Amino acid sequence: MTVEVFMRRAIALSCEQVEAGGGPFGAVIVRNGEIIAEGANEVTLANDPTAHAEVVAIRRAAQALGTFDLSGCTLFTSCEPCPMCLGATYWARIDQLFYGNDRRDAAGIGFDDEFIYREVVLPPVARSLKMTRLLPDEAQAAFDAWCKSPDKVSY
Amino acid sequence: MTVEVFMRRAIALSCEQVEAGGGPFGAVIVRNGEIIAEGANEVTLANDPTAHAEVVAIRRAAQALGTFDLSGCTLFTSCEPCPMCLGATYWARIDQLFYGNDRRDAAGIGFDDEFIYREVVLPPVARSLKMTRLLPDEAQAAFDAWCKSPDKVSY
Repeated sequence: MTVEVFMRRAIALSCEQVEAGGGPFGAVIVRNGEIIAEGANEVTLANDPTAHAEVVAIRRAAQALGTFDLSGCTLFTSCEPCPMCLGATYWARIDQLFYGNDRRDAAGIGFDDEFIYREVVLPPVARSLKMTRLLPDEAQAAFDAWCKSPDKVSY
Repeated sequence: MTVEVFMRRAIALSCEQVEAGGGPFGAVIVRNGEIIAEGANEVTLANDPTAHAEVVAIRRAAQALGTFDLSGCTLFTSCEPCPMCLGATYWARIDQLFYGNDRRDAAGIGFDDEFIYREVVLPPVARSLKMTRLLPDEAQAAFDAWCKSPDKVSY
Protein backbone atom coordinates (compact mmCIF):
# COMPACT_ATOMS: atom_id res chain seq x y z
CA MET A 1 0.00 0.00 0.00
CA THR A 2 1.19 3.49 -0.74
CA VAL A 3 1.04 6.43 1.65
CA GLU A 4 -1.67 7.97 -0.53
CA VAL A 5 -4.05 5.15 0.40
CA PHE A 6 -3.73 5.94 4.11
CA MET A 7 -4.05 9.68 3.57
CA ARG A 8 -7.18 9.13 1.49
CA ARG A 9 -8.66 7.16 4.40
CA ALA A 10 -7.89 10.05 6.79
CA ILE A 11 -9.50 12.44 4.32
CA ALA A 12 -12.55 10.18 3.96
CA LEU A 13 -12.95 10.19 7.76
CA SER A 14 -12.76 14.01 7.78
CA CYS A 15 -15.52 14.22 5.15
CA GLU A 16 -17.71 11.64 6.93
CA GLN A 17 -17.34 13.58 10.17
CA VAL A 18 -18.78 16.73 8.60
CA GLU A 19 -21.78 14.66 7.49
CA ALA A 20 -22.09 13.36 11.08
CA GLY A 21 -22.11 16.90 12.48
CA GLY A 22 -18.55 16.89 13.82
CA GLY A 23 -15.41 18.83 12.94
CA PRO A 24 -13.78 18.39 9.48
CA PHE A 25 -10.75 16.40 10.58
CA GLY A 26 -9.75 12.74 10.31
CA ALA A 27 -6.67 10.69 11.19
CA VAL A 28 -5.37 7.14 10.94
CA ILE A 29 -2.41 5.41 12.56
CA VAL A 30 -0.48 2.82 10.58
CA ARG A 31 1.94 0.17 11.76
CA ASN A 32 3.63 -2.41 9.54
CA GLY A 33 1.53 -1.33 6.56
CA GLU A 34 -1.77 -1.73 8.38
CA ILE A 35 -4.24 0.75 9.89
CA ILE A 36 -4.41 0.04 13.64
CA ALA A 37 -6.62 2.97 14.69
CA GLU A 38 -8.78 5.70 13.20
CA GLY A 39 -10.17 8.92 14.62
CA ALA A 40 -12.21 11.96 13.71
CA ASN A 41 -12.84 15.24 15.46
CA GLU A 42 -15.40 14.61 18.24
CA VAL A 43 -15.05 17.90 20.16
CA THR A 44 -18.63 19.06 19.78
CA LEU A 45 -20.24 15.63 19.41
CA ALA A 46 -18.60 14.23 22.57
CA ASN A 47 -18.24 17.48 24.54
CA ASP A 48 -14.50 16.90 24.78
CA PRO A 49 -12.21 19.80 23.85
CA THR A 50 -9.27 17.36 23.58
CA ALA A 51 -11.00 15.04 21.11
CA HIS A 52 -9.20 16.18 17.97
CA ALA A 53 -8.85 13.48 15.31
CA GLU A 54 -5.16 12.87 16.08
CA VAL A 55 -5.71 12.56 19.85
CA VAL A 56 -8.65 10.19 19.29
CA ALA A 57 -6.57 8.03 16.93
CA ILE A 58 -3.54 8.03 19.27
CA ARG A 59 -5.67 6.99 22.26
CA ARG A 60 -7.26 4.18 20.25
CA ALA A 61 -3.92 2.99 18.84
CA ALA A 62 -2.42 2.84 22.33
CA GLN A 63 -5.43 0.86 23.57
CA ALA A 64 -5.21 -1.49 20.57
CA LEU A 65 -1.51 -2.18 21.14
CA GLY A 66 -1.71 -2.15 24.96
CA THR A 67 1.13 0.36 25.32
CA PHE A 68 1.64 4.11 25.63
CA ASP A 69 4.61 3.85 23.24
CA LEU A 70 3.65 4.06 19.58
CA SER A 71 7.21 3.82 18.23
CA GLY A 72 7.14 2.35 14.74
CA CYS A 73 3.79 3.97 13.96
CA THR A 74 2.99 6.60 11.33
CA LEU A 75 0.22 9.18 11.72
CA PHE A 76 -1.79 10.31 8.69
CA THR A 77 -3.95 13.33 9.44
CA SER A 78 -6.17 15.31 7.09
CA CYS A 79 -4.79 18.57 8.57
CA GLU A 80 -1.49 19.73 10.09
CA PRO A 81 -1.67 19.04 13.85
CA CYS A 82 -2.30 21.88 16.29
CA PRO A 83 0.19 22.21 19.21
CA MET A 84 -1.94 19.90 21.38
CA CYS A 85 -1.93 17.14 18.76
CA LEU A 86 1.70 17.72 17.85
CA GLY A 87 2.62 17.38 21.53
CA ALA A 88 0.58 14.17 21.74
CA THR A 89 2.44 12.86 18.68
CA TYR A 90 5.80 13.43 20.39
CA TRP A 91 4.67 11.92 23.69
CA ALA A 92 3.40 8.86 21.80
CA ARG A 93 6.81 8.56 20.07
CA ILE A 94 5.23 8.30 16.64
CA ASP A 95 7.96 8.09 13.98
CA GLN A 96 6.52 10.00 11.10
CA LEU A 97 3.56 12.15 10.17
CA PHE A 98 1.77 12.98 6.91
CA TYR A 99 -0.74 15.83 6.69
CA GLY A 100 -3.06 17.27 4.03
CA ASN A 101 -4.42 20.73 4.85
CA ASP A 102 -2.12 23.07 6.80
CA ARG A 103 -2.63 25.52 9.66
CA ARG A 104 -3.35 28.37 7.25
CA ASP A 105 -6.12 26.38 5.58
CA ALA A 106 -7.52 25.64 9.07
CA ALA A 107 -7.40 29.32 10.03
CA GLY A 108 -9.22 30.10 6.79
CA ILE A 109 -12.28 28.15 7.95
CA GLY A 110 -12.18 29.45 11.53
CA PHE A 111 -9.93 26.98 13.41
CA ASP A 112 -7.24 29.14 14.89
CA ASP A 113 -4.42 26.68 15.44
CA GLU A 114 -2.06 29.47 14.32
CA PHE A 115 -3.06 31.59 17.36
CA ILE A 116 -2.19 28.73 19.71
CA TYR A 117 1.14 28.21 17.89
CA ARG A 118 1.94 31.87 18.54
CA GLU A 119 0.96 31.60 22.22
CA VAL A 120 2.97 28.42 22.93
CA VAL A 121 6.27 30.07 22.00
CA LEU A 122 5.75 32.97 24.41
CA PRO A 123 7.08 32.91 27.97
CA PRO A 124 4.21 32.12 30.40
CA VAL A 125 3.90 35.73 31.61
CA ALA A 126 3.47 37.06 28.06
CA ARG A 127 0.59 34.81 27.03
CA SER A 128 -3.04 35.91 26.67
CA LEU A 129 -3.86 33.05 29.08
CA LYS A 130 -3.08 34.32 32.58
CA MET A 131 -0.51 31.95 34.12
CA THR A 132 0.76 32.24 37.70
CA ARG A 133 3.33 30.16 39.53
CA LEU A 134 2.17 29.07 42.97
CA LEU A 135 3.68 26.98 45.81
CA PRO A 136 6.64 25.58 43.84
CA ASP A 137 8.36 24.41 47.04
CA GLU A 138 5.35 22.29 48.00
CA ALA A 139 4.86 21.02 44.45
CA GLN A 140 8.38 19.60 44.51
CA ALA A 141 7.22 16.86 46.92
CA ALA A 142 5.81 14.61 44.20
CA PHE A 143 8.97 14.96 42.11
CA ASP A 144 11.09 13.98 45.13
CA ALA A 145 8.85 10.98 45.78
CA TRP A 146 9.05 10.01 42.10
CA CYS A 147 12.85 10.07 42.16
CA LYS A 148 12.91 7.82 45.25
CA SER A 149 10.19 5.42 44.05
CA PRO A 150 11.53 1.97 43.12
CA ASP A 151 8.27 1.16 41.29
CA LYS A 152 8.15 4.05 38.85
CA VAL A 153 7.52 3.44 35.17
CA SER A 154 9.42 6.15 33.30
CA TYR A 155 8.36 7.30 29.87
CA MET B 1 -11.28 29.49 49.56
CA THR B 2 -7.92 30.75 48.47
CA VAL B 3 -6.00 29.66 45.40
CA GLU B 4 -3.52 27.89 47.67
CA VAL B 5 -6.21 25.40 48.74
CA PHE B 6 -6.81 24.33 45.15
CA MET B 7 -3.10 24.14 44.35
CA ARG B 8 -2.55 22.00 47.43
CA ARG B 9 -5.25 19.61 46.16
CA ALA B 10 -3.48 19.38 42.78
CA ILE B 11 -0.20 18.71 44.60
CA ALA B 12 -1.86 16.07 46.80
CA LEU B 13 -3.13 14.31 43.66
CA SER B 14 0.39 14.37 42.19
CA CYS B 15 1.81 12.75 45.34
CA GLU B 16 -0.97 10.13 45.52
CA GLN B 17 -0.34 9.25 41.88
CA VAL B 18 3.30 8.39 42.58
CA GLU B 19 2.06 6.06 45.34
CA ALA B 20 -0.37 4.50 42.86
CA GLY B 21 2.44 3.87 40.37
CA GLY B 22 1.57 6.69 37.96
CA GLY B 23 3.34 9.88 36.91
CA PRO B 24 3.98 12.67 39.47
CA PHE B 25 1.42 15.15 38.18
CA GLY B 26 -2.00 16.29 39.42
CA ALA B 27 -4.55 18.89 38.33
CA VAL B 28 -7.91 20.29 39.39
CA ILE B 29 -10.41 22.50 37.58
CA VAL B 30 -12.33 25.09 39.55
CA ARG B 31 -15.49 26.98 38.66
CA ASN B 32 -17.29 29.43 40.93
CA GLY B 33 -15.00 28.53 43.83
CA GLU B 34 -15.67 24.81 43.57
CA ILE B 35 -13.62 21.90 42.22
CA ILE B 36 -15.57 20.39 39.32
CA ALA B 37 -12.96 17.87 38.12
CA GLU B 38 -9.67 16.32 39.15
CA GLY B 39 -7.02 14.42 37.24
CA ALA B 40 -3.65 12.78 37.64
CA ASN B 41 -1.14 11.45 35.13
CA GLU B 42 -2.42 8.08 33.87
CA VAL B 43 -0.08 7.60 30.89
CA THR B 44 1.52 4.37 32.06
CA LEU B 45 -1.37 3.12 34.19
CA ALA B 46 -3.95 3.53 31.41
CA ASN B 47 -1.66 3.05 28.39
CA ASP B 48 -2.70 6.45 27.09
CA PRO B 49 0.07 8.85 26.02
CA THR B 50 -2.42 11.74 26.11
CA ALA B 51 -3.51 11.10 29.71
CA HIS B 52 -1.55 13.91 31.35
CA ALA B 53 -3.16 15.29 34.52
CA GLU B 54 -4.40 18.45 32.80
CA VAL B 55 -5.94 16.57 29.84
CA VAL B 56 -7.63 14.10 32.21
CA ALA B 57 -9.04 16.97 34.31
CA ILE B 58 -10.19 18.93 31.24
CA ARG B 59 -11.95 15.88 29.78
CA ARG B 60 -13.71 15.22 33.09
CA ALA B 61 -14.69 18.86 33.59
CA ALA B 62 -16.20 18.99 30.10
CA GLN B 63 -18.15 15.80 30.82
CA ALA B 64 -19.32 17.17 34.18
CA LEU B 65 -20.57 20.41 32.65
CA GLY B 66 -21.86 18.84 29.42
CA THR B 67 -19.97 21.26 27.19
CA PHE B 68 -16.65 21.53 25.37
CA ASP B 69 -16.38 25.18 26.48
CA LEU B 70 -14.79 25.63 29.92
CA SER B 71 -14.94 29.43 29.91
CA GLY B 72 -15.07 30.67 33.48
CA CYS B 73 -12.91 27.80 34.75
CA THR B 74 -9.45 27.94 36.32
CA LEU B 75 -6.89 25.15 36.00
CA PHE B 76 -4.56 24.35 38.90
CA THR B 77 -1.77 22.00 37.92
CA SER B 78 1.14 20.72 39.99
CA CYS B 79 3.50 21.38 37.05
CA GLU B 80 3.68 23.83 34.16
CA PRO B 81 1.75 22.31 31.24
CA CYS B 82 3.60 20.76 28.30
CA PRO B 83 2.61 21.99 24.80
CA MET B 84 -0.06 19.28 24.52
CA CYS B 85 -1.71 20.35 27.78
CA LEU B 86 -1.26 24.05 27.09
CA GLY B 87 -2.96 23.55 23.72
CA ALA B 88 -5.79 21.67 25.43
CA THR B 89 -6.14 24.57 27.89
CA TYR B 90 -6.58 27.05 25.03
CA TRP B 91 -9.01 24.84 23.13
CA ALA B 92 -11.07 24.44 26.33
CA ARG B 93 -11.13 28.25 26.72
CA ILE B 94 -9.97 28.04 30.32
CA ASP B 95 -9.55 31.56 31.75
CA GLN B 96 -6.59 31.22 34.05
CA LEU B 97 -3.93 28.74 35.08
CA PHE B 98 -1.83 28.23 38.22
CA TYR B 99 1.17 25.89 38.23
CA GLY B 100 3.69 24.68 40.83
CA ASN B 101 6.77 23.01 39.32
CA ASP B 102 8.00 24.36 36.01
CA ARG B 103 9.33 22.76 32.81
CA ARG B 104 12.92 22.89 34.08
CA ASP B 105 11.94 20.99 37.23
CA ALA B 106 10.19 18.44 34.99
CA ALA B 107 13.25 18.09 32.75
CA GLY B 108 15.32 17.55 35.91
CA ILE B 109 13.43 14.33 36.68
CA GLY B 110 13.36 13.09 33.10
CA PHE B 111 10.17 14.58 31.59
CA ASP B 112 11.36 16.47 28.57
CA ASP B 113 8.58 18.96 28.02
CA GLU B 114 11.30 21.48 27.13
CA PHE B 115 12.32 19.39 24.12
CA ILE B 116 8.74 19.42 22.81
CA TYR B 117 8.53 23.19 23.41
CA ARG B 118 11.63 23.59 21.22
CA GLU B 119 10.19 21.33 18.50
CA VAL B 120 6.78 23.04 18.36
CA VAL B 121 8.27 26.40 17.38
CA LEU B 122 10.18 24.96 14.43
CA PRO B 123 8.74 24.88 10.91
CA PRO B 124 7.46 21.36 10.11
CA VAL B 125 10.42 20.51 7.84
CA ALA B 126 12.97 21.37 10.58
CA ARG B 127 11.54 19.12 13.32
CA SER B 128 13.08 15.86 14.48
CA LEU B 129 9.66 14.31 13.76
CA LYS B 130 9.53 13.73 10.00
CA MET B 131 6.50 15.61 8.62
CA THR B 132 5.40 15.48 4.99
CA ARG B 133 2.54 17.24 3.27
CA LEU B 134 0.44 14.95 1.09
CA LEU B 135 -2.64 15.36 -1.12
CA PRO B 136 -3.58 18.87 0.05
CA ASP B 137 -5.98 19.34 -2.88
CA GLU B 138 -7.96 16.26 -1.87
CA ALA B 139 -7.85 17.15 1.85
CA GLN B 140 -9.57 20.44 1.08
CA ALA B 141 -12.84 18.56 0.39
CA ALA B 142 -13.83 18.31 4.06
CA PHE B 143 -13.13 22.00 4.63
CA ASP B 144 -15.30 22.90 1.63
CA ALA B 145 -18.09 20.64 2.95
CA TRP B 146 -17.74 22.22 6.42
CA CYS B 147 -18.12 25.72 4.99
CA LYS B 148 -21.29 24.72 3.13
CA SER B 149 -22.82 22.71 5.99
CA PRO B 150 -25.86 24.37 7.56
CA ASP B 151 -25.61 22.06 10.61
CA LYS B 152 -22.03 22.75 11.68
CA VAL B 153 -21.25 23.52 15.32
CA SER B 154 -18.29 25.91 15.27
CA TYR B 155 -15.88 26.15 18.17
